[in-house]
Amino acid sequence: MPGRQLDLEILLQSRGMVSIDRERLVGIQEVGRLNGEKLHRLIKAGKVVILGRDEKKRIAVGKGMTTKVNVNLGTSSVMCNEAGELEKARIAEIHGADTISDCSMTGDIDSLRACLLHEISIPLTTIPVYQAVADAGSIEKVDDRCILRTIQKHVDDGVDSIVIHAGFDRQALEDLREQRRIMGIVSKGGSLSAAISLYQDAENPFIRLLDDILEILAGTGVVLNLGNAMRSGSIHDFKDAPQHNEIVSNAKIATRANAKGVPVIIEGLGGHVNAYHLKEWLEDHDRITGNRPLFVSGPIPTEIGVGHDHISAAIGGAMAAGYGADYLCAITPAEHLALPDKNHIKEGVIAAKIAAHVGDSIKHGINAFFEPDKILSKHRASRAWDKQFAQALDPEGARELHPPGNKDCSMCGKFCAIALMEKYLFSKKD
Amino acid sequence: MPGRQLDLEILLQSRGMVSIDRERLVGIQEVGRLNGEKLHRLIKAGKVVILGRDEKKRIAVGKGMTTKVNVNLGTSSVMCNEAGELEKARIAEIHGADTISDCSMTGDIDSLRACLLHEISIPLTTIPVYQAVADAGSIEKVDDRCILRTIQKHVDDGVDSIVIHAGFDRQALEDLREQRRIMGIVSKGGSLSAAISLYQDAENPFIRLLDDILEILAGTGVVLNLGNAMRSGSIHDFKDAPQHNEIVSNAKIATRANAKGVPVIIEGLGGHVNAYHLKEWLEDHDRITGNRPLFVSGPIPTEIGVGHDHISAAIGGAMAAGYGADYLCAITPAEHLALPDKNHIKEGVIAAKIAAHVGDSIKHGINAFFEPDKILSKHRASRAWDKQFAQALDPEGARELHPPGNKDCSMCGKFCAIALMEKYLFSKKD
Repeated sequence: MPGRQLDLEILLQSRGMVSIDRERLVGIQEVGRLNGEKLHRLIKAGKVVILGRDEKKRIAVGKGMTTKVNVNLGTSSVMCNEAGELEKARIAEIHGADTISDCSMTGDIDSLRACLLHEISIPLTTIPVYQAVADAGSIEKVDDRCILRTIQKHVDDGVDSIVIHAGFDRQALEDLREQRRIMGIVSKGGSLSAAISLYQDAENPFIRLLDDILEILAGTGVVLNLGNAMRSGSIHDFKDAPQHNEIVSNAKIATRANAKGVPVIIEGLGGHVNAYHLKEWLEDHDRITGNRPLFVSGPIPTEIGVGHDHISAAIGGAMAAGYGADYLCAITPAEHLALPDKNHIKEGVIAAKIAAHVGDSIKHGINAFFEPDKILSKHRASRAWDKQFAQALDPEGARELHPPGNKDCSMCGKFCAIALMEKYLFSKKD
Repeated sequence: MPGRQLDLEILLQSRGMVSIDRERLVGIQEVGRLNGEKLHRLIKAGKVVILGRDEKKRIAVGKGMTTKVNVNLGTSSVMCNEAGELEKARIAEIHGADTISDCSMTGDIDSLRACLLHEISIPLTTIPVYQAVADAGSIEKVDDRCILRTIQKHVDDGVDSIVIHAGFDRQALEDLREQRRIMGIVSKGGSLSAAISLYQDAENPFIRLLDDILEILAGTGVVLNLGNAMRSGSIHDFKDAPQHNEIVSNAKIATRANAKGVPVIIEGLGGHVNAYHLKEWLEDHDRITGNRPLFVSGPIPTEIGVGHDHISAAIGGAMAAGYGADYLCAITPAEHLALPDKNHIKEGVIAAKIAAHVGDSIKHGINAFFEPDKILSKHRASRAWDKQFAQALDPEGARELHPPGNKDCSMCGKFCAIALMEKYLFSKKD
């Protein structure tokens, strides 16, 4: 498939870029900061993967890279509006999402995916078990052929990454019955995969079919995302055996996949995780998986913010990114309550972008990627509002709160601290 | 003044409370977890202060206590609507603010303060230099009598705490001229105090008048809040000499004040602080001040979230609280752009409450104060929506996104992970 192979030469054309602008926060340009050999080594060691069918929107996910942001969208069995989902994807891309995951389960899933691949240029991920269940009509009617056919179709269509939940076996499900979790399995893909396995009274199909799946992916450049089925759904559900064993299993699968040339992202420590243990558990995860690229959904460090879970997730996500996560899933204010609308998507993306950026400052320090913060501060000091907003993640949102023409901010008016000090402190300098 | 004296007996009546409910997150009831002697020791050592004219809304701020949240409001020279500010105070109280700071600079400041004291029961803080400048008409007309008269009036009116900016002297201002800060002084109270000092070509009036101020406060129970005039206004402005010296000076003033029986909260490390250094600088602050109660405004760990600074501040605030801050100032989405409206106030309070709660989990672990999170999770597991929302910081906000009558969440509909696992995994248990 032309253009799908990893082309390091293209990636590294950006090397030597010196001007810093907002694009650097979202783009692949960061590889310009690494020499080709070092990036090669990281990719070869499975610590970095490259995602993206559009070379201008390719991203590097993993150790040493900036933290990336994914946005989930797609039709649900309650709300099905393909055009609306496409619109959400556009909004996500405009506001700086690095990737989109299409989680559709109803309507014309094939056609929506085709539209997303055509009209959106950032990488697209799918969770084939969703469509396998949707196409089969029920959990009970899903069979191996249906699963493999769906994966093959998504790969042929040109998706950039697929998610499977292969990190738990039948024994893990038995163990889960014995655990005293408040919330059992809260991963949708995980619960669909578990339900198929339990209904068939057979091993998790993604374990049984793993060789076939790797066969489909090998040589395509499509990234295999190993889902986090065993994540906790409450901050009171501490890390347990099923969760630990899934990390170990996913690490082994990653080694098998990498050996066949399939790049891997591991999803882990997502869901609801208390902030007290977050650093320790993330360090454990990185150790067990050999520092493979880590995708985290949330994590949400408190339950009582429901309705504002994008804020809870921004706190958890910033800390997770600071302690080792490479890739965050945006959480919207509608999380746990409803399918998000397009405004929720915008709020969720911006919250996650803030979290990723702060996480980067924790793990990398204040480096060249914080140049937009510096430029914004300088323009703030001179009250150059438009130039400030040009550096912001959401220039329109800032402008709505401070309409053009307003010279001062109505918070302090003539008693603006900066203006006062210009008059009384710094003017005497001249 | 009856009722203004610290009455430990009243405070400790709540000792022995065993039922845990949402009130415990905002109330003084936490002292029930400490025996009287231990709390006495903490208060005597200046590590905890008690705030509040209404005994039912008294709070303990400091080491070992839950993190508290303050909300700034008040008229500005651009927008003056006393009734609107009172409405904001009501909204802040309803949504769980622990204290209000009245930052009014125009209109009928005395009457607004009287209304706030009468109609709001949570503690009220003022920054007397604001009204001193407003009453005098300009920086140039402020004199010592005007400052002392304003402080006396606020204390007589019954405010619970006042802020002064006495931690910097003329030399600090000279030093500041030499610093290469992007943003000079961004504290309004700090810049007003500095402007008075510079215009008068005299020492900072709050240093000169400190003995008189302590005289006014002694025996009243009013808490002295030592402002953070030298805080940084950009994450690129790292901790410098003026900032360090202010911490040292405020620590010395706190010792003097405590010796006269005046309880002290120190404001520090607020403003804009990069997340990389946050832990180290907070630990320094606690060491220098002898673990006195620490009030932090923000801190905001990135500039590019402008328009969404409540989210940036929630990340910085949660980390700050986790590493030692005792008391956070809510930041609204309008921060740096405009005087917040009542919706912004609500969003800011909720973001700060989430941050304080997550911060508590970092510093204290998941203890009894996280019982609401557990109850919410249990009701989430059984999809008991109303009972879930009853534990939330914003039940109305959650209900708007998930209206009564909706049994399922439209995110997953019939493919709800919890429902699937009830059917396929946990039902087999029976």
